[in-house]
Amino acid sequence: MADELNGGRIAILATDGVERVELEQPRQALDQAGATTTLLSIKTGEIAARDHDLEDAGTFSVDGDVHGASPDEFDALLLPGGTVNPDKLRMDSGAIDFVRAFVDSGKPVAAICHGPWSLIEADRVRGRRLTSWPSLRTDLRNAGAKVVDEQVVTDGTLTTSRSPDDLPAFCERIVQEFAKARERV
Amino acid sequence: MADELNGGRIAILATDGVERVELEQPRQALDQAGATTTLLSIKTGEIAARDHDLEDAGTFSVDGDVHGASPDEFDALLLPGGTVNPDKLRMDSGAIDFVRAFVDSGKPVAAICHGPWSLIEADRVRGRRLTSWPSLRTDLRNAGAKVVDEQVVTDGTLTTSRSPDDLPAFCERIVQEFAKARERV
Repeated sequence: MADELNGGRIAILATDGVERVELEQPRQALDQAGATTTLLSIKTGEIAARDHDLEDAGTFSVDGDVHGASPDEFDALLLPGGTVNPDKLRMDSGAIDFVRAFVDSGKPVAAICHGPWSLIEADRVRGRRLTSWPSLRTDLRNAGAKVVDEQVVTDGTLTTSRSPDDLPAFCERIVQEFAKARERV
Repeated sequence: MADELNGGRIAILATDGVERVELEQPRQALDQAGATTTLLSIKTGEIAARDHDLEDAGTFSVDGDVHGASPDEFDALLLPGGTVNPDKLRMDSGAIDFVRAFVDSGKPVAAICHGPWSLIEADRVRGRRLTSWPSLRTDLRNAGAKVVDEQVVTDGTLTTSRSPDDLPAFCERIVQEFAKARERV
């Protein structure tokens, strides 16, 4: 099926330092399944992407400002990684309020690599089973998460993966999970 | 006085992504006070520096391998920031073992900006009063630290600062603290 997300509205939240493939590949998978993806950020214009955190990897055009955005406008949220990206997002209270509201809305949220740092800042990993890039697992455990080392993990509305190597499994899973959530509406 | 650290041996631990000024300026202050600074890393050759996390800022030559290094060889430890730098260090168990052994040795340890992430990974911030770059303060609190928002904070053997803007105060303080520790020997 290539239309299981037909009409679905997916928010992607990222800023400078985002790991290019972790935005590009999930967005492509969601677009191909029929969804409309909207890149929200804490800045306007373009955001700077990276490969392996340290190499310049072009830019992405920002579609909208996360400040003032509401989960009501979207069906699911995607949080890509890249070390510097969530490190900047978590200092922005408007961005973190949006993430928290999204988790609390009961709509699906997916995060990969360093993306879960924003969930820590929103205090929404407590008691959740999830995975991440290895560097932030101590932070996740200290924030109350049950951290596992698996390719892709779904716990309720929350889906997480570890790294760019997991992207095939992550992309497949988020299309499934985002589609399941739409059936429940 | 320009020789209060004469003969002092200071380890600096950093890797790719280090914030240039946070290595350069403290090292200069320590060198000017008569110390010998040794840049330890988890890789050999050179490490890539950054300005404001995202701009290329040259390289630093690595002086030694942190794996197998011992606090016995040094009088104090400096942990510069840069988001990607401690994010990489904390995944290296040898680097974190060195940091933990240093704190446990009772010799002074100084960390600035994102540097304290390595102290979280070593589980050595519990009950300590310290500061950092704003992004990791939730991680520090969750790891048991008492986080404050001050230019420079010394709690026992641990000295911390928030950002490059704090470098003048940080550099002055670490020279004082490292010198005081030598007097105690």
